[in-house]
Amino acid sequence: MSGAGKLFGVGMGPGDPELLTVKAARLLREAPVAAYFAKTGETGHARRIADGYLEPDTEELRFDYPYTTEVPKRSASYRDAMTSFYDRAAGEMGAVLEDGRDVALLCEGDPLFYGSFMYVNDRLASRFDVEVVPGVTAMAACWCRVGVPMARGDDSVSVLAGTMEEDALLRRLRTADAAVVMKVGRHLPKIRRALDRAGLLDRAVLVERGSMPEERIVPLRDCRDGEAPYFSLVLVPTARTAS
Amino acid sequence: MSGAGKLFGVGMGPGDPELLTVKAARLLREAPVAAYFAKTGETGHARRIADGYLEPDTEELRFDYPYTTEVPKRSASYRDAMTSFYDRAAGEMGAVLEDGRDVALLCEGDPLFYGSFMYVNDRLASRFDVEVVPGVTAMAACWCRVGVPMARGDDSVSVLAGTMEEDALLRRLRTADAAVVMKVGRHLPKIRRALDRAGLLDRAVLVERGSMPEERIVPLRDCRDGEAPYFSLVLVPTARTAS
Repeated sequence: MSGAGKLFGVGMGPGDPELLTVKAARLLREAPVAAYFAKTGETGHARRIADGYLEPDTEELRFDYPYTTEVPKRSASYRDAMTSFYDRAAGEMGAVLEDGRDVALLCEGDPLFYGSFMYVNDRLASRFDVEVVPGVTAMAACWCRVGVPMARGDDSVSVLAGTMEEDALLRRLRTADAAVVMKVGRHLPKIRRALDRAGLLDRAVLVERGSMPEERIVPLRDCRDGEAPYFSLVLVPTARTAS
Repeated sequence: MSGAGKLFGVGMGPGDPELLTVKAARLLREAPVAAYFAKTGETGHARRIADGYLEPDTEELRFDYPYTTEVPKRSASYRDAMTSFYDRAAGEMGAVLEDGRDVALLCEGDPLFYGSFMYVNDRLASRFDVEVVPGVTAMAACWCRVGVPMARGDDSVSVLAGTMEEDALLRRLRTADAAVVMKVGRHLPKIRRALDRAGLLDRAVLVERGSMPEERIVPLRDCRDGEAPYFSLVLVPTARTAS
């Protein structure tokens, strides 16, 4: 669309504001409008990371998720509410873009690796110029904090959703040289069982809030917690040793 | 070791110097000594990314890989040469650290996701304080350049080495919702065959030198090349569509 603004999907990294890229920092300084998603009543994770980078006169477009507590995500009412939510958010961003102004959409981690950016991209990419700026993923921040190599040589690494059924998780864990389990939350006991059945429990490490001030790193073998915070993942580094 | 310097494994990102993190940029400015690996006769990829960030008085420790052409990596002579190479590099960095000076080791992409940093870490982590700074991975830079979501919802993502046997690759591709094939090089025709057999060829995209000036993005279906440059990977984004 000629004369329209450009949408930037900006990867904000895992939490530590210093883990933003130099490019993301520049785009936040230059952006006339910064958009972000947040839970009602909270600052919003992406917005908090941006704190020291946005200019005082940056216009902010905040979108509060329709849910604050966990609801069944496969229910039709949840899906409908989220569809309307993203329709409205994309509509508002689209209006700013049509007005000829750029929008920087702040995205936790990396914009195209899980996360909400893709729902906006789905709705706007055919009408507007979009540039996606990669970010440091939460998993990379976590394995760097643990300080052990995740993958060496010909290793394969499986990134798995902890929301999967236990047997599906187990099947995938069995073929992986190294693994990252995302979306841990209340699925922690199931993930722990699957790792134990796969013979991987001794290699597994739970990282909560990696790179944030409240970070916690604990061998999963020693952890009997019934759930983990939202920003948590389980790492299973390669078994290959030094050479 | 008291009074010793600290080793920083600094993730340099995928190639574009603006995709360095703010933290990496700061550490490069502050580092008294910057170490890096390079092929003989070349500037070195990590060193090139660092160009605008290092101070004129930064001391540089350059280590030339013992091989400039491809050799059988499973051969004993290759392994011996690489072991001596990393022993010597770690020895030289260790001497600087013992001298009380910090060393920033420049690492392509992310330091603990494949790459050479781990060989130095293996040799020095028990004797010195080590901090690892995550970086944007090449794969994240590539999927952001392609601009399609890699993983949505409960998707699993498999990161696979293109060096694997075709059948092993195929088996892993069959259980993945999305995949990244690293280490493409001369394995491109085999990777293409495995993707075709897995029914994934139409979704596969070859990205050469992602985020670098000579970048090339091509649907793998349309590509009959016999090999790909060193900095290449194949992406198979999720089949899940917009919601």
